[in-house]
Amino acid sequence: MLSIAPAAAQQVVRYEPTEKDLKFVYATAPPVATLKPGDTLDTKTFDAFGNVIRKRGDTMAMVKGDNPLTGPFAIAGAEPGDTLVVKILQLTVDSTQGVGALAPGFGALNTTSYTPMLNQTLPEKVWFYDIDAKTNQATFHALDSSFSVKIPLQPFLGCIGVAPAGGEARSSIVPAEFGGNMDASEARPGFTLYLPVNAPGALLYIGDGHAAQGDGEVAGTAIEVPLRVRLQVDLIKRKKIAWPRFENDSMLLAVGAYRPLDDALRIAFTELVGWIHTDYDLSELDSYELLSKVAKIHLAEMVDPNYVVIAGIEKKYLPPPRQNR
Amino acid sequence: MLSIAPAAAQQVVRYEPTEKDLKFVYATAPPVATLKPGDTLDTKTFDAFGNVIRKRGDTMAMVKGDNPLTGPFAIAGAEPGDTLVVKILQLTVDSTQGVGALAPGFGALNTTSYTPMLNQTLPEKVWFYDIDAKTNQATFHALDSSFSVKIPLQPFLGCIGVAPAGGEARSSIVPAEFGGNMDASEARPGFTLYLPVNAPGALLYIGDGHAAQGDGEVAGTAIEVPLRVRLQVDLIKRKKIAWPRFENDSMLLAVGAYRPLDDALRIAFTELVGWIHTDYDLSELDSYELLSKVAKIHLAEMVDPNYVVIAGIEKKYLPPPRQNR
Repeated sequence: MLSIAPAAAQQVVRYEPTEKDLKFVYATAPPVATLKPGDTLDTKTFDAFGNVIRKRGDTMAMVKGDNPLTGPFAIAGAEPGDTLVVKILQLTVDSTQGVGALAPGFGALNTTSYTPMLNQTLPEKVWFYDIDAKTNQATFHALDSSFSVKIPLQPFLGCIGVAPAGGEARSSIVPAEFGGNMDASEARPGFTLYLPVNAPGALLYIGDGHAAQGDGEVAGTAIEVPLRVRLQVDLIKRKKIAWPRFENDSMLLAVGAYRPLDDALRIAFTELVGWIHTDYDLSELDSYELLSKVAKIHLAEMVDPNYVVIAGIEKKYLPPPRQNR
Repeated sequence: MLSIAPAAAQQVVRYEPTEKDLKFVYATAPPVATLKPGDTLDTKTFDAFGNVIRKRGDTMAMVKGDNPLTGPFAIAGAEPGDTLVVKILQLTVDSTQGVGALAPGFGALNTTSYTPMLNQTLPEKVWFYDIDAKTNQATFHALDSSFSVKIPLQPFLGCIGVAPAGGEARSSIVPAEFGGNMDASEARPGFTLYLPVNAPGALLYIGDGHAAQGDGEVAGTAIEVPLRVRLQVDLIKRKKIAWPRFENDSMLLAVGAYRPLDDALRIAFTELVGWIHTDYDLSELDSYELLSKVAKIHLAEMVDPNYVVIAGIEKKYLPPPRQNR
């Protein structure tokens, strides 16, 4: 279902995907809708399990594909070498329940296909979280005791990315240069995400709503939920970035996504040094020294095929931005 | 200089090291003083360069040894298998100036002896930071432009550790199971540090004061300063821990120190899961799941021979502690 409501020169595009519309790769593919720069998108995402894990006894075997994506959305006029701007306006948990799970072969502290061990795998286990929209909290219930505790909701998009470069089609599980499954809590209202445009129309995909997540997402899942999503797209013509970047009123944040974490960190910081140098006119070595004193590191996740480190600096430590940025 | 002033049953031990008293390895060595459990220590540390880099034109060639340590302090009755408790009471920057530097072969974004590259090395560079005790701020001055900016002070001990196990003598540059150069901003007032006792008397060393530091300490230094230090020691008999742990009123924090960051993270989280399981009576898999939703990760440094990741959880998410912990 797709409708377009004009709002002055800019429009609000509404798109309601059904199960058959979901995608499982970031790729060059026919768009489900086209947005103009400045347009707002109102849509929804399914949870990481396609909304099929609903009650005690449901198992991962019921999941048809992990991290189903809503999209792609084309952005009119976007060409390789431009930067796509995505301003996240509103996210609402679209369920009274969230799901967490140990899936054998997924997690930071157990054997996985990319960190193989001969040890016995951990068992599959599923936790259900009550979502209370009124108090903005989820409830964790221990499986092995009667303990329960409330966790504040902070919804964000686990997946947000564009078609990769070079005609690649990448799994919705993989974060990389094109964004993707970054599991970055910065993909929430108040933040703007910059993504490199690699294919005509950019082709934006979103999915994998998280109601709350710990740093590292170490056991492999957040509180997994479907989301109602409102975001606004824009385009910076002929500005080429190499990796995703986040920005809000107070911070610059550069994303690195690879293994090991060491290299993800080097990517993120090298990007951040370049960003500060180019747009804020501090020399590379002064930027490096300053970051050694005031940088913030957010380790977003260490469970996907590539790990995600986000390097940040508060704008209050920077010179004024260049006028022509 | 060493003086002991009795204060009820507990004592305040004062120790003023001179340059010849400084140590450069964590090792089994004759103690400079012995503290009883409950005693307070008043002492000072030299900065990471032995206080010799003072003015423009001073170079790293003047440094006699990196990260000089004050100590060791024996703790009466400490035996291998016990846990040393160090409560950090007060830290004061003991200088009107701090130092930061690019030292060739040290840093996260450049070639080092453990991450060798054929690229040309980065040059040696030194930045001086004015320390203003009244406003509790340091000032960064760019070398390549006229930009300057103020940074709030948050002093902590870059180095704090004990004699390693098995008779090892480890460089003051290395963080590991015995603590050491963790560059953890948690080594500051309000936090308690737990260290495994590996040798009779434990043998506590401190040094490498930091007036402020960014996550990761990416260029290799913090704002390096000498510190006045007040801390209190205690002992938990027959409680064996494998890695350093921090605690304050609101959080539990477990330290992992190794390469790559991935394994440092696995160490830290495995320790934290064990700590929660043993002392707070949540099953290992419930702990793992809960951490996936609420964990905090502090990447302390990625520049020393071992990297340091600190995994934390807010106590508000945990069941009450066991009575017998």
